[in-house]
Amino acid sequence: MASGAQDIAKGAKAAFDKSQLVPASERVLALKIIRDELAARKDEILAANALDLKAAQAEVDAGRMSESMLKRLDLGTGDKWDSMLQGILDVSGLPDPTGIVSYASELDDGLELYRVSCPIGVLLVIFEARPEVVVNIATLAIKSGNAAILKGGKESNNSTVLLSKAISAGLAKTALPDTYIQTIQSRAEVSSLLALDQYIDLVIPRGSNSLVQNIKNNTRIPVMGHADGLCSVFLDESANVDKAVRIVVDSKTDYPSACNSAETLIVHEAVLNTVWPKVAEALLDANVKLLVDEPSLAALKASSSHPRIESYVSPADDEAYNTEHLSLTLSVKTLPSLSAAISWINAHSSHHTESIVTESDESASIFTRGVDSAGTFINASTRFADGFRYGFGTEVGIATGRIHARGPVGLDGLVTYKYMMKSKGEKGHIASEFGTGANKRPFKHARIDAKAVPF
Amino acid sequence: MASGAQDIAKGAKAAFDKSQLVPASERVLALKIIRDELAARKDEILAANALDLKAAQAEVDAGRMSESMLKRLDLGTGDKWDSMLQGILDVSGLPDPTGIVSYASELDDGLELYRVSCPIGVLLVIFEARPEVVVNIATLAIKSGNAAILKGGKESNNSTVLLSKAISAGLAKTALPDTYIQTIQSRAEVSSLLALDQYIDLVIPRGSNSLVQNIKNNTRIPVMGHADGLCSVFLDESANVDKAVRIVVDSKTDYPSACNSAETLIVHEAVLNTVWPKVAEALLDANVKLLVDEPSLAALKASSSHPRIESYVSPADDEAYNTEHLSLTLSVKTLPSLSAAISWINAHSSHHTESIVTESDESASIFTRGVDSAGTFINASTRFADGFRYGFGTEVGIATGRIHARGPVGLDGLVTYKYMMKSKGEKGHIASEFGTGANKRPFKHARIDAKAVPF
Repeated sequence: MASGAQDIAKGAKAAFDKSQLVPASERVLALKIIRDELAARKDEILAANALDLKAAQAEVDAGRMSESMLKRLDLGTGDKWDSMLQGILDVSGLPDPTGIVSYASELDDGLELYRVSCPIGVLLVIFEARPEVVVNIATLAIKSGNAAILKGGKESNNSTVLLSKAISAGLAKTALPDTYIQTIQSRAEVSSLLALDQYIDLVIPRGSNSLVQNIKNNTRIPVMGHADGLCSVFLDESANVDKAVRIVVDSKTDYPSACNSAETLIVHEAVLNTVWPKVAEALLDANVKLLVDEPSLAALKASSSHPRIESYVSPADDEAYNTEHLSLTLSVKTLPSLSAAISWINAHSSHHTESIVTESDESASIFTRGVDSAGTFINASTRFADGFRYGFGTEVGIATGRIHARGPVGLDGLVTYKYMMKSKGEKGHIASEFGTGANKRPFKHARIDAKAVPF
Repeated sequence: MASGAQDIAKGAKAAFDKSQLVPASERVLALKIIRDELAARKDEILAANALDLKAAQAEVDAGRMSESMLKRLDLGTGDKWDSMLQGILDVSGLPDPTGIVSYASELDDGLELYRVSCPIGVLLVIFEARPEVVVNIATLAIKSGNAAILKGGKESNNSTVLLSKAISAGLAKTALPDTYIQTIQSRAEVSSLLALDQYIDLVIPRGSNSLVQNIKNNTRIPVMGHADGLCSVFLDESANVDKAVRIVVDSKTDYPSACNSAETLIVHEAVLNTVWPKVAEALLDANVKLLVDEPSLAALKASSSHPRIESYVSPADDEAYNTEHLSLTLSVKTLPSLSAAISWINAHSSHHTESIVTESDESASIFTRGVDSAGTFINASTRFADGFRYGFGTEVGIATGRIHARGPVGLDGLVTYKYMMKSKGEKGHIASEFGTGANKRPFKHARIDAKAVPF
């Protein structure tokens, strides 16, 4: 056990406990101050970012890092810096997710119960590569009232250290404790922290399936994982060809490296010779490589002479259907019925988002209920699975589990609740007075219409 | 890996997937049929229960089992059998927790999003001793639409086997799959099942802290633990003496072996010579043994000559404040302020339920917000922390974690949600049409007032 990790975790819990008596308005103010600290330190931070970029360029040159990862490290590119700062203000302006009453009941005359949202406690958030995520996550944690310990990718260490210093400098100007947001650099610290379930309440890993699985294997702290999306589109027997083309092409090509992009196309065999060839041609036109099964290959060859069939279409092996391509590649599976498609999806998908293209209300209803995924869509692209598109104003990520929060997670995924009860009775309230029998009375259980706790 | 466990888990997941297309009304019907099956098999089940009782009596005689555990095993005592059957009908009559829309938004003209509650999937529920819990939990699982694998205590095996047979016989008469509810007998099967996170979605252990910790250490499946309650009552400097006496005595003595009974009394030093002696005398009158610190002992001796002080009052060691007595014993701690009490509770309690006795609105407000427990009460007994008393109609248990569900858990703790989206657009909906720039449009995000999904 690194004593450093113990100190960090204890510091975070102490900060959380102390912060419970700091009003939410102070958290909004802190976000404004942090934004200003970052703005004032822009040159310094971008200079540190340049060091990360230089090291990354050497890795790219040596063939050990992809160009796209290098690009994700760059804080100065395009409007990324300004977006990061504006994001702080956007989140600070969202409604406070804490203090909201979701259940209120008068249990007896003068005995009132309120279920009220409150922060979870201490979050340990682990993510990869992009340095601005430190700022995004710190913003979400502060807005929702949680203390947080953040670990970014080692490739962005220089940038992360300076971003964290700015956040700490901002916090020091507020009533919030200075250990409210802490960052760590090493994997060893993560390992030590994963053992400290007395201080840490939730681990949020954002990254690959293997990162999430590895963390789940090594902690008894609850884990809200954000991992792979193995999304699919199903062309039902009543699929409209124009909708099918638009939705499949968008689901695959709008942003291929996103987790809500489609990786698998499932074709009802009834449309193999009608809808499927049109969809395939549109995909080939969009430079999409197709990994197909025998029926879909035969149907395509019989109906189309698209010039790319030879070079862009190849047989799928079993692994193709379990692969998150994250590129312009799509696996294609032919199945004989809607129910076969539902069973196949439930067995193969990552339970992220699936869409049906259909003109049948009955098929749509069966699909949305029978498919066990966080998103079940009718005639809409899988790419809509996103916190901003859903209207949450921000996004912690897209949770691939089904406990606590599922699918795109907004600020309300970072809160839990507590039950507050108040007796206004002259003698207080005790439980032994309730029940059946002599001198006992029943509970009243009259719902109270309240949005906030009145005491 | 026992292949038996693999088959059980796969069977449960298959049953869950199939059940998604069975209407909720069928689940209510199944509960009625199961109740009737149990009623028809009463003699047979009580005969099996007699075998368990006989074996338990031998354990009691040998000093290896407590009388209270023997009593908990007895299905025939008092109105337990009838209560068990009535409980099935009570739960079946509660509102369906699934299909409820908690967020609905029109993202664009003709593009509607619904967040709708749905079952979690496959539950693995592990509990101790009382055989009727098999029936209670099966009822909760069926009502909420989850498949379940149940493991009871080995002491009730004979009873549990016959109760399970009745449940299976009932399910066989319905449209629900016969592997929807399964029971297992051995710890080895539990160990194997804890590795099968591809089939099992949530583990619910109900029992001791060590049971819950052991399970958390041995699975990557999310765990919703129901374990110890180390509840406390705090006597604030403005505490009313009559309220203090009533609330402390009720919190301690109403049902000492319950998890929502108080184990610790915290006394503000300002009331050491006023409120505390009266409370102590009432506790001594109620046969409560007191483990006290030096200030509370000195104050009690100075103010009271209660005849039980010599025999019922003794010094507390550090361990006393971390012990769930579950009996007529109460630890007493003196602290100098409200804020010291809050810090002490947050460090020592099991975050279950804490109550303040106070006449100060300010102290009450600070206590309910600053104490990080599932229940924070003002002038009310900790014994109110209970699903029935809260008005939920039933109770899965009292969750001691803070993820997914916290405190008393009703049926809504056994559901998650999914996002259903429908495009009514003539061309379906694709994501690349939205955004800023040429030919792009913004999202509409108009909230829809809907309680159920209209498609």
